Amino acid sequence: MCPPALIPFRPRNPKTRLSALLSLEEREQFARAMLEDVKAAVKDAMCSPVLVCTELFDSDDVQVTVTDTDLNGTLNGILPDSIGPTLIIMADLPLADTAAVRRMISTEKDVAIAPGRGGGTNAIFMKEPRRFHVDYYGTSFLKHMKIAQEAGLSVDVVDSFRLHTDIDEPWDLAELLIHGTGKSRAFLESLGFILSAEKGRVGVERVR
Amino acid sequence: MCPPALIPFRPRNPKTRLSALLSLEEREQFARAMLEDVKAAVKDAMCSPVLVCTELFDSDDVQVTVTDTDLNGTLNGILPDSIGPTLIIMADLPLADTAAVRRMISTEKDVAIAPGRGGGTNAIFMKEPRRFHVDYYGTSFLKHMKIAQEAGLSVDVVDSFRLHTDIDEPWDLAELLIHGTGKSRAFLESLGFILSAEKGRVGVERVR
Repeated sequence: MCPPALIPFRPRNPKTRLSALLSLEEREQFARAMLEDVKAAVKDAMCSPVLVCTELFDSDDVQVTVTDTDLNGTLNGILPDSIGPTLIIMADLPLADTAAVRRMISTEKDVAIAPGRGGGTNAIFMKEPRRFHVDYYGTSFLKHMKIAQEAGLSVDVVDSFRLHTDIDEPWDLAELLIHGTGKSRAFLESLGFILSAEKGRVGVERVR
Repeated sequence: MCPPALIPFRPRNPKTRLSALLSLEEREQFARAMLEDVKAAVKDAMCSPVLVCTELFDSDDVQVTVTDTDLNGTLNGILPDSIGPTLIIMADLPLADTAAVRRMISTEKDVAIAPGRGGGTNAIFMKEPRRFHVDYYGTSFLKHMKIAQEAGLSVDVVDSFRLHTDIDEPWDLAELLIHGTGKSRAFLESLGFILSAEKGRVGVERVR
């Protein structure tokens, strides 16, 4: 089984909440490095990455390019045509590893959901994507639980901090420097980011 | 196998970072409700809770009462006398469930560690506690990885957002309202806390 893994990705001006720490060019490179880490985890778990990009993106990956930026409309346009099990996974999960992706796709339930912090949804695996639709933004985790329930689909909530930890805010970078092993951690380190302890809570600082 | 689960607990004036939302009495009740949730998860996983309290605490649980507040000194005084596999788990993990605790205690490695956010350590399971010692505070996760390595002990990093999510800050309460199922969630709801969406990110508000 090599299910497709749809990975929404925004190549231009991504991760604006990191603007205080990273320049536009650095944010674009960082987003791409995180994407590479997610792709590596997904491929090692025997899934086939399919980038869902807001614009044409220079890569060798299979791509779906969409002109509008409505993630829900885009994905819900793709799912009804999906003929087999399908994974959707966010591109900003550089801690994702093969084991976590395998736990998603080996679920015994109809749907597996990996919640993100603050009620988000970081990954969804659907055995029958035609019977599901997505509703991102806000407390999408609760919305997806309800969508599954209303469709009569059983759900496995995958308990993984590696899939729970999306990188959005400056303090999230500490998680990457602690637990990351891939390209995005190396990229941060190449820019001079290190862990710093401030009043007990660990953060990051940029030393060059 | 019924390994002891050491649960450090501070009955008086706990969770001071929630002071803006909860009175002293409410914080003490909330901390106790979280402890009850952790104990329930631990007991369901066939572990025997042992409270490690900074003062005598009115409960039916097995207790170790310590007069000093040095968590490391306290636990490192206990571990050399532990004759079998031992779990240490924090009391502020109300999302912890039986499955997550089982993953800890069923590890094939010598030690299982569940990291907390920001480099903390939320749970440690040691098959041979005499060969390990703890070093909490700061990036304790990295310190514990090093301690295990230096002792020649293999380590399983348990990938669980339920064990990763300690409740310290006001925005952590949202995680409890989204994913909690036990007494501490019910307590928050009884106080009038509900989820609120503010600028895309989900928080909590207190409606009475």
